Amino acid sequence: MEKTTIIEKKKHGKLRNPVMVTGLPGIGLVGQVAAKYMIKKMGGTKVAEVYSPHFPHQVLMSKKGGLRLLKNSIYLLKGKVRDLLVVIGDVQAVSSVGQYEVAETILDYCSKKGVSLMITIGGYSTGKVAENRRVFGSANNKRLMADFREKGIIFGETRGSIVGVAGLLPGLAALRKMDGICIMGETHGNYVDHTSARNVIEKLSELLGFEISLDELDKEAKGREKVIRKIEKEVEQQMSGPPKKDITYIR
Amino acid sequence: MEKTTIIEKKKHGKLRNPVMVTGLPGIGLVGQVAAKYMIKKMGGTKVAEVYSPHFPHQVLMSKKGGLRLLKNSIYLLKGKVRDLLVVIGDVQAVSSVGQYEVAETILDYCSKKGVSLMITIGGYSTGKVAENRRVFGSANNKRLMADFREKGIIFGETRGSIVGVAGLLPGLAALRKMDGICIMGETHGNYVDHTSARNVIEKLSELLGFEISLDELDKEAKGREKVIRKIEKEVEQQMSGPPKKDITYIR
Amino acid sequence: MEKTTIIEKKKHGKLRNPVMVTGLPGIGLVGQVAAKYMIKKMGGTKVAEVYSPHFPHQVLMSKKGGLRLLKNSIYLLKGKVRDLLVVIGDVQAVSSVGQYEVAETILDYCSKKGVSLMITIGGYSTGKVAENRRVFGSANNKRLMADFREKGIIFGETRGSIVGVAGLLPGLAALRKMDGICIMGETHGNYVDHTSARNVIEKLSELLGFEISLDELDKEAKGREKVIRKIEKEVEQQMSGPPKKDITYIR
Amino acid sequence: MEKTTIIEKKKHGKLRNPVMVTGLPGIGLVGQVAAKYMIKKMGGTKVAEVYSPHFPHQVLMSKKGGLRLLKNSIYLLKGKVRDLLVVIGDVQAVSSVGQYEVAETILDYCSKKGVSLMITIGGYSTGKVAENRRVFGSANNKRLMADFREKGIIFGETRGSIVGVAGLLPGLAALRKMDGICIMGETHGNYVDHTSARNVIEKLSELLGFEISLDELDKEAKGREKVIRKIEKEVEQQMSGPPKKDITYIR
Repeated sequence: MEKTTIIEKKKHGKLRNPVMVTGLPGIGLVGQVAAKYMIKKMGGTKVAEVYSPHFPHQVLMSKKGGLRLLKNSIYLLKGKVRDLLVVIGDVQAVSSVGQYEVAETILDYCSKKGVSLMITIGGYSTGKVAENRRVFGSANNKRLMADFREKGIIFGETRGSIVGVAGLLPGLAALRKMDGICIMGETHGNYVDHTSARNVIEKLSELLGFEISLDELDKEAKGREKVIRKIEKEVEQQMSGPPKKDITYIR
Repeated sequence: MEKTTIIEKKKHGKLRNPVMVTGLPGIGLVGQVAAKYMIKKMGGTKVAEVYSPHFPHQVLMSKKGGLRLLKNSIYLLKGKVRDLLVVIGDVQAVSSVGQYEVAETILDYCSKKGVSLMITIGGYSTGKVAENRRVFGSANNKRLMADFREKGIIFGETRGSIVGVAGLLPGLAALRKMDGICIMGETHGNYVDHTSARNVIEKLSELLGFEISLDELDKEAKGREKVIRKIEKEVEQQMSGPPKKDITYIR
Repeated sequence: MEKTTIIEKKKHGKLRNPVMVTGLPGIGLVGQVAAKYMIKKMGGTKVAEVYSPHFPHQVLMSKKGGLRLLKNSIYLLKGKVRDLLVVIGDVQAVSSVGQYEVAETILDYCSKKGVSLMITIGGYSTGKVAENRRVFGSANNKRLMADFREKGIIFGETRGSIVGVAGLLPGLAALRKMDGICIMGETHGNYVDHTSARNVIEKLSELLGFEISLDELDKEAKGREKVIRKIEKEVEQQMSGPPKKDITYIR
Repeated sequence: MEKTTIIEKKKHGKLRNPVMVTGLPGIGLVGQVAAKYMIKKMGGTKVAEVYSPHFPHQVLMSKKGGLRLLKNSIYLLKGKVRDLLVVIGDVQAVSSVGQYEVAETILDYCSKKGVSLMITIGGYSTGKVAENRRVFGSANNKRLMADFREKGIIFGETRGSIVGVAGLLPGLAALRKMDGICIMGETHGNYVDHTSARNVIEKLSELLGFEISLDELDKEAKGREKVIRKIEKEVEQQMSGPPKKDITYIR
């Protein structure tokens, strides 16, 4: 394997107006949690695997005694009106050149499969544990932006840059005249954020017309939310020093 | 995109004795400020974009909700006697191999367009806020040096090396028997320097025979100059310790 | 040498059902010690050398005044029932891309030679000096796992990832439908571990049906074992602080 | 320039049994000082230049206002019995892959020119300012070693590895069945060492049968020797603490 390579694992019939959805490791693991949950709940079939010499030179050991290369995997999910190709994975490439190569390889695959819309899921870090976490978007063309704004995605409130595959895929898609958008769940940034992932999936289900039960994720999110808020409270107290009463006591 | 790629964005007629002028991020942002101002004032048309897997693996988000790859852009500016191809950009390549590749790709483009002179704009850091900031040059052949010295560019007063595209373009141009020169505005090095950029543009307009109003840049430069001098004064005071009076007071 | 290259050094007849065994520098040097001992005791013949521009840019000087490139070497060992191709070497490649390239080059060589099973030897670090050090395995398919478990290799008790050639070879072998397994000797991690290497060789001789005297390695292992236990004891004492008596004395 | 490239600068007649001598920046600058002195004194003609995208992405400015790429240069020196191709240069490649590529490119050039012996000059650091600095060798085959030992080069007293072109050239030469040797001048390691360079040239002139006046280098060496010994003395005193007398004085 000299170059990033996609190996098709399972044949499938003609795809119905397919859209790619990518959720790789990144801020708050929002993309990864969302994509994995979708695959689990919607019964995805693995159709392809992505290998790259730009991934770290390691293999993962399983609990049963197996080992396997680091990889990204592509699952086919049958939606109500259109099919989804969902990418999840262990890692992203370690160098800039590697990141571009992996993104281009995925785009080549998408072109071949007739994908006309690339959606990447990411987290947008605000450093706060917001009560109602918003879902932001950043798109590679105005028509797409107008389209998704209409459906409730918030544009123009994010700043800076999107690092890695979540940014490169829609960025490079533009050079191929392909629609590309990064959907970002608002998140603190220091915590794995199931609540944010939940909000992103909810929006995606509306945008792409698929049905999914969020119950299990809601439950998981609620449990974690308590822990996050507890930690945040402790951090806050430590940073603001002891309350006045204590000072009196020390005297 | 496996390699650095130039995508032509707009057709244009035959160019009149074109010269390339490059102003990418570097010392004091002298090159970037100068090139951007020239494009703005002279009404440049974007004719090409440069993309590279050697640029950082990020996309930039715009205020309106758009995203785009990091890139360099080439603008066509119609001068009075000759045409200018002006390069600006977000970044430079992250590795040595990448820097050479980007520079060679730009040179290939220039050869194709009939460019015979490569000018790069940079800053030359002196660590001082000079009253009258000079404009230095360093050229890839003696004839060019003589030519530009005659027109008021100062040669032989700069030392050391020029890092990045500002140096590689004229350096690699020599291997193609193409004229190449780096024009450096004297600058402190710690500040964005509009005054230095102004001086460089003034010289360039004489050298290349184009007209440009410097009023707006002059105004911006004056405002910033005040701030820079104020900061410098404070730094100086801090480094020279408290004034004598204070010492007395401490006693 | 633009790419990793294997240079054949000696012709050999048809190999009998050959298996590759790799012991390169890694945790506790378990693989390296084991592979070198096997070559020494079983009278291996060097049949090939592996060179790579991804190895460090150095040459080694010998005691006699010679110099040579860093390399991996492949030895042919004639077992009772099948032949062994044993890889040892000075180094592993310095980058991820280099590691993949070296592993693929070795796999190409193995395919050509009719190798159907890739065994890599490594150390599995536990941070303890265990009395009876176990021999673990992690395989690239279930059949192989069942096979080797039957013969006493322990599966499913190792966690995390295997870094470098020891992991990549069986990992990449899977993509070629080739059997691959990493045999790991339990080891502390901070010491060169001859005892662990000994245990691995013992298992391998059973698995692959070759005979080897372990006497010399046993002797070496016993000597080193004493030193290791002494150091460990000292470390333990230092970390647990002074004994009670001393505390009394300080009072 | 995608790859390391040699550009021939001047035609020359048939070479008489040519030998390559390389003196690039390294330990004590022994190789660089020696090679530059040889070119200066023996009247070398520059016959080729080596450029590489693996050199740092910088150009050097000259005192007169010129700029040029970083490069290595090859000079032709006419000896009494055989011709010398001497390599000097600003830098070595920044990565392992780059180092191998530059070395292979130089070897290709040598093969074309009929070179049968590669000599690289380096420094061998001992951490001491030896009175009589020896000249060591490390060769890529036994015959060469025997040959050079007879002529007074010391073998078998150096340990460890030779980093960079000084090691790779003779190391890679072996794969081409070409003779290669690194001649190392004994040196402290912290200082530019003209005395060591002098000793190496003296040996080379005997080995390769060329005449060269060492007077100028001797003079330079003597001057620097005084400075080095003075610094060493001061360092020694600082590290051994104040002498007893001083302690009394402080009381």
